[in-house]
Parts: sequence; structure tokens; C-alpha cells
Amino acid sequence: MARKASLSGFPEWLPQERLVELHVLDVLRRTFELHGFTNIETRAVETVGQLLRKGEIDKEVYALSRLQAEEGEAGREDPNRLALHFDLTVPFARYVVENAGHLSFPFRRYQIQKVWRGERPQEGRAREFTQADIDVVGDGELPFRYDVELALVIAEALGALPIPDFRIRVNNRKLAEGFYRGIGLTDTAGVLRSIDKLEKIGAERVAELLRDELGATDEQAQAALALASIRTEDTSFVEQVRALGVREDLLEEGLAELAEVIAEAGRRAPGRVLADLSIARGLDYYTGTVYETVLVGHEQLGSICSGGRYDALASKGSRTFPGVGLSIGVTRLVSRILSQGFVEASRSVPTAVLVTLTDDGSWSAAQDVAAQLRARGISVEVAAKAEKFGKQIKYADRRGIPFVWFTSEDGTHEVKDIRSGDQVPADPAAWMPPAEDLAPQVRAAAPAPAE
Amino acid sequence: MARKASLSGFPEWLPQERLVELHVLDVLRRTFELHGFTNIETRAVETVGQLLRKGEIDKEVYALSRLQAEEGEAGREDPNRLALHFDLTVPFARYVVENAGHLSFPFRRYQIQKVWRGERPQEGRAREFTQADIDVVGDGELPFRYDVELALVIAEALGALPIPDFRIRVNNRKLAEGFYRGIGLTDTAGVLRSIDKLEKIGAERVAELLRDELGATDEQAQAALALASIRTEDTSFVEQVRALGVREDLLEEGLAELAEVIAEAGRRAPGRVLADLSIARGLDYYTGTVYETVLVGHEQLGSICSGGRYDALASKGSRTFPGVGLSIGVTRLVSRILSQGFVEASRSVPTAVLVTLTDDGSWSAAQDVAAQLRARGISVEVAAKAEKFGKQIKYADRRGIPFVWFTSEDGTHEVKDIRSGDQVPADPAAWMPPAEDLAPQVRAAAPAPAE
Repeated sequence: MARKASLSGFPEWLPQERLVELHVLDVLRRTFELHGFTNIETRAVETVGQLLRKGEIDKEVYALSRLQAEEGEAGREDPNRLALHFDLTVPFARYVVENAGHLSFPFRRYQIQKVWRGERPQEGRAREFTQADIDVVGDGELPFRYDVELALVIAEALGALPIPDFRIRVNNRKLAEGFYRGIGLTDTAGVLRSIDKLEKIGAERVAELLRDELGATDEQAQAALALASIRTEDTSFVEQVRALGVREDLLEEGLAELAEVIAEAGRRAPGRVLADLSIARGLDYYTGTVYETVLVGHEQLGSICSGGRYDALASKGSRTFPGVGLSIGVTRLVSRILSQGFVEASRSVPTAVLVTLTDDGSWSAAQDVAAQLRARGISVEVAAKAEKFGKQIKYADRRGIPFVWFTSEDGTHEVKDIRSGDQVPADPAAWMPPAEDLAPQVRAAAPAPAE
Repeated sequence: MARKASLSGFPEWLPQERLVELHVLDVLRRTFELHGFTNIETRAVETVGQLLRKGEIDKEVYALSRLQAEEGEAGREDPNRLALHFDLTVPFARYVVENAGHLSFPFRRYQIQKVWRGERPQEGRAREFTQADIDVVGDGELPFRYDVELALVIAEALGALPIPDFRIRVNNRKLAEGFYRGIGLTDTAGVLRSIDKLEKIGAERVAELLRDELGATDEQAQAALALASIRTEDTSFVEQVRALGVREDLLEEGLAELAEVIAEAGRRAPGRVLADLSIARGLDYYTGTVYETVLVGHEQLGSICSGGRYDALASKGSRTFPGVGLSIGVTRLVSRILSQGFVEASRSVPTAVLVTLTDDGSWSAAQDVAAQLRARGISVEVAAKAEKFGKQIKYADRRGIPFVWFTSEDGTHEVKDIRSGDQVPADPAAWMPPAEDLAPQVRAAAPAPAE
């Protein structure tokens, strides 16, 4: 479970590990669909021009070129050159604009795909990884309620996964910007950039940054830090912010929005959604609610699910498409699940039954038995050779197949549970394995160790 | 359904089209798992050296470079340069070699992923497309029976898809090579290359090629063409080949193998698996059975599923891994399903029920209703705003949501089928929609038009 990838930054799973990942993906798909999100996929490539529209990420992009490129093909500086997408938000924005005439808004979609980043790989970061995104996008306007709803959907989705407890930390860009403005700091992005370093470098050094780089007074720096220190599980953060004595319309708007998220989430996902006024989400293009998520006891893993509200995910002429969305880092999550042994698959193959051969001529008859079993949803393999039964049983045992089927020459059938050794007569038209043996189970291993 | 891709060769689907693709993928996954195939994924990239090992495909490869590559990074000619995989066989071979110590053989896997080819796009070909592969790989040896089994699995998988009837055409490389050798033609690859053009250029021009390029006599050319003209639904091809009067051990071996496939397939998938001695599979590395599949009435689409037996898919020192496998061209198939309107999705969203709002304060109570319904697997959306009921119903209607839920102020519930207009009292803890409305159905549209 801790093999090294043969190509650094490009993890690959063994079959029993992939079963865990498939389980995670199935749970996410099911939860998203229960909430009315429809699936799309976008192509893996965008033009470099499209990818760089938001700036500052060009180092991480893998550009494509045909190995035997011809004269006149898109060159290094050509904005039409193709490159692999580095997230699912930029491609989704393009998709919405291109297909606006065919979509009905608000458009709710989930999208689960690989993305690529050409960065030097480091702990917890891969060059190829899977993201699972949900977004709701409106045409012109999008009610704030969706900001509340998305926190609930994500809490439900993560809560259904085989992971330790988690905390969705929520903040609001309006709240922060309104507060900073109220204390006389107008470079919101600059302040957020500094506040974003709080966990890494501590309050004193952030205060220094605010003073030295943004010209904040000592009082302003302390006020900004006081705001960032507020974390509550309920809406009491509102009073704590008010106690700081800053008055600003935008601040009030942000407080009301965040209070709505926290109040509803407190009701439906108690303890899992917090107001955390230190959450800055770096330089992203969010304009209201922002979300980050950590696994309790694994905070150093970083955020496993982040997102927020953007007033203009995309625009088309005078038409804008506001949205709110979150992205789950599936590979990061699955890597942690596997490396910590949170769960294990009960076997590495789907097969529940191996139908053995009495002699080489019985293969076709064995296929008949297999077809009868499969008709009831039982995964079956037929032995390829009439080896000694001991060898055929060993084949099943090696891959964790729980049952072995025997058909004797007089046409009677028996099935053996190779774990218990119990062997009983069975009818291929009726026999069923116990429900827990029907498909590989992804089940909790030992209790999750804290770190 | 016939929109042009915004980037030539990179098809993207609308939500209702993606539902059809998802249905296809779900059916394939289910069928493969019922037959004991386990899932893996491999990374999207391989080194150029790995990809070009089999030669002659370098034109089609998309190589990667970081947009801001640094000095000393893999250059144009570096075999360690990364490129996108162009099929799933080469990556699978690498995966088997790398993980041989962790796999149990014969290893049965399915793999469904995108692949990329940097070719000029043309009718029926894309630059990015999804393949669904199944292979069985042995360690050192692999019983021939798997060649029979894989034809049966694929016949079952394709038979479960919403597509017109199909024909799996099977040939055997040993049969062809033995026959050619028996008539004195030793350049098997050369003869196969010419025979492969039979459908395109006709028998006369193939005979010319055999004479002019391979130095065949008129008699040899006619014999090779006579072999290629044999197609039977049963094992009568054996007698037809024998009637050509050629004797060769390798030919006999090939005849016996092919007869075994056709005999068993004739029993289980009558009419769907043919012996077709014209199938050459170009320059591929197959060493025995070869398969191709056409949709009846859509032959000009080309093969939708191809593969074969290879004596050494991979090797590791003195250890070789023989395999047999097939690859379904999912994108090609789905494109045809969509463009021909073989099927349609009953709606474009998973949502079965929209819970309406009486007033803006009822959102949280509406979420309670939604949670009760979802607990029974019903996909539910809650209206975001308390607009007039007419507007809320129109929202559901526009996206094909069949049911709308009302909760009155006294706490009673009603559900309306907006197609029939029927509205009845309902209990959120018990109500179920009819089974066919629970999830979007992918169902046959008008009978498939022949072309």
C-alpha cells in the first residue's frame, strides 16, 4: 500500500486500492445525483490562452505538441496551443459559455476527472490527480441559498466516505473586505494574502507583513488579526465581529450570509461546518462565501475540499454566469485513506464464485452454470483448465474468491465456502451468496490513528 | 445532438448526451465485473521511449512539456520525455511488469479511460476518445480457452448496449500464416497488409499488390484471396479451407483454435460471432486469435471493438506475459448512438422531485422533506426561491423533473405529476415515484435507421 509511483507525481493503484477509489467515486456520484446534480465531462485540453485568462498559473501547465509537429503548427507563444487543464473550473466556465443555449439555468453539474499540474511533486501533491467538482451556475443571477445548499451537499458526501471526521471551514469575502475597508485597509487582496499565511508563519509575522508591505498601522494589523482569530461552530461569530466595533455595509452583508450558512449547517451537519474568519483562499476569484475542509487529525494534509462563490464564473457578451462550487481532491483523499489504512477491500477481484472443471470437456457446461449465476448479479469466473481441485481451489483462494462451485458427472451441484470449508448442495438457478460476499466490500480497518 | 465540437477532434457531450454515455459505461462495467474482471487505471502519460517501443506510431503522439520548461528538462529527442498514451495496451503492459509481484495471474482486468492521438481529425476519428479494454494476462502461459471466453464476454457486453445488431469477426494469425507458408508466401506481414485492403480496394487490386510487391505468382495470389473470401457462421470454414488443399501444421493449429471459438460462440451468441478469414488487423502484434466488430448497417463506421491474442504482451527478464484482450471504442460507439438517435435519455437531470417553497422561510423545512425522500434513493432538488408555484413548476418542467412536491402551512403534503397533472396527498416518509421515474432512463428511440 505504500509502493513508490514509477513516475514521480503520477500515482497508480493496485486492483485492491483501485476498489477503494472506485468506492469513493461511487459514493460521491450517488450523493451528487441524489441532490439533482447532472454529470458532464470536458475535454482534457484547453487552449493556453483560455487557461491563462486568470493569470499567474503558467508554470504549472503541461503544454502539448505533436511529437512530429509540422511547420506552422502552434508554436511556443501561440495562445491557441493546447495544454492539459489544471482544474475543472476553467473548462466548466468555457463549457457553460459554449453551451449556454442548450443548458437550463441554474445549471447544477458534477464533474469527476483527472487534472494535471506540471509542478515539482511534493508531499501530498501529484502531477496527475482526480478532482470531483460540484457547481451551481445561474444565468445573470444566482440566489444566495445555493451557497448554503452546497455546504450541506458536501457535508453529506464527505460524511458518507470512509474517512475520519472533517471540518468544513467557511468564511465570506464580503465580510473580510467590508471589515478591512471599515478599518481603513483597502488592498483586500494584499491583506488576504498575508492572512492566508497565518497558520504557516504565525500572528506576529503576519502583523509585520501587514505593516511593512501594506502600510497598516499597528492598530489596523491587530484588528485584522483579531478578525482572523474568530472561529465558532454557531453564529456567535457575528457578535464577536460586532464587538470589534467596525461598521460597514459590506461587512453586514457578509455577516448575514455567513450566518445563514452556519445556522442551517449547524442544524443538519452539527459540528462539521464552522465559521472560520481566517480562511482566505489565496488569490482566487471568489466574491462571497469561501470554503475549505480539513480532516481532523490530518490538518497538515491541507484542504481536501475547497471552493466558493464567484459572481462571474464566466461571461458571454453582457451576460454573466455567477456560480458557487466546491472541488474535492479525490486523489489526495484516497492516498491518505490507503496510506493510513482507514479501510480495506474485502477482496481484490469482483468474483464471488469460481466454477471448477471436472474435466476439460466440461468447460461449456460450466459456462452454463456461470450464466445462470450471473443472471442474478453474481460475479463468476470459470476455471480455464481441469487441474486438480486443490489447484483450482488455490486459484480462488489466492485472489480472495470466497466460493468454489463443483458439478459432478451426475449433474449435481455443490458449493464450498473456502473460508469455512463448508460444502453444501446448491441449485445454479437459485443459490445466492450472503449479501456481504456478493461484491467486494470496502470496510473500515482498525480505528483511524491520529497523527 | 449534432453540435460541432468547439475544438476539432475533441467531442464533448451535453448533459442528456452524457447520460447516454454513462449508461454505456455502466453496462460495460457491470458486465465485465460479472465476469470477474477487476478495474485498474493507469496514468495518462508514458515516456516517449515506452510508447515508441513497438515503433511506427510517433506521428500520433502528443508530447508534453511544461509551459515554462527549465534548462535541462527533457528535450525533443529525450526518450524520457512524457507523452499522452494513445491506447490502453501499452500502459497496461508496463503496469503488469511493474506490479507483477502484487498481481495474481492469470490477471483479468478492465480499464476504461481516455486516450489521445495527435492525428488530423477525420470522420469517425477523434483526438481524444474513451476506450474500454478487457484483457487476461498470464505469467508464462495462458490457456487458449481465454480466447474463447473473451469473445463471449464481449458479445454479452455489446449485446447489453443500446446499439443495433453487431458481428464479431474472428480470424487466427496462425491459420493465415500457416496457409501462406503452405502456398510458399513467407512474408506474412506483407500478405496481411495487402489482404487488409480488401474491403477498400477490392480483390483484383489486392492480387496486383501481392504480385507486384511480394512477388507472388498468380496462383499464390488467387489462393490467398480464396482464403480471405471465406466467412462462415459455423465451423464449416474448416472444410472450406481444407478444400483449398494446403497442408501445414501451423494452419491446422489455427483452424482448431478458430473452430473452438466459433463452436462455443455459436452456442452462446448465435449469429453474432463469425469466422472471417479476411480479418488481418494490420500490423498489430497479435500472434493467434484476432477480433474485429462491426455494427450491422453501419459497417463503414469501422470496427467498434478489436483485439486479439499476443504471446508476449510484456516481458520482464526471462519472464513473459502472454495475453488476450479486446478494446471497445466507446466514443465512436456513443457518437453513433447519439447521431443516429438510437436511444434517448428520458430527462437531462437525475432529479425526480422538486420540493417547492410556500414562502422563503420554508426552505429549511423543505430540506427536511428532501432528506426524507433521498433516504429512499429519490433524487430531489429544493427550490431556491419562493416564486409563484407556476414559476416553480415551470422550472421543473424545463428540465424534465417529473414530480413537484407541495407542503402547505398546516403541514400536509401533496405531490403532483406535472406530465398528467395528477396531484395526490403524499407522505415524505413513504412516497415513492414509479420505478421508471426514479432515475433517468436511457431508452430506445425510433427503430434504428439503416444507412
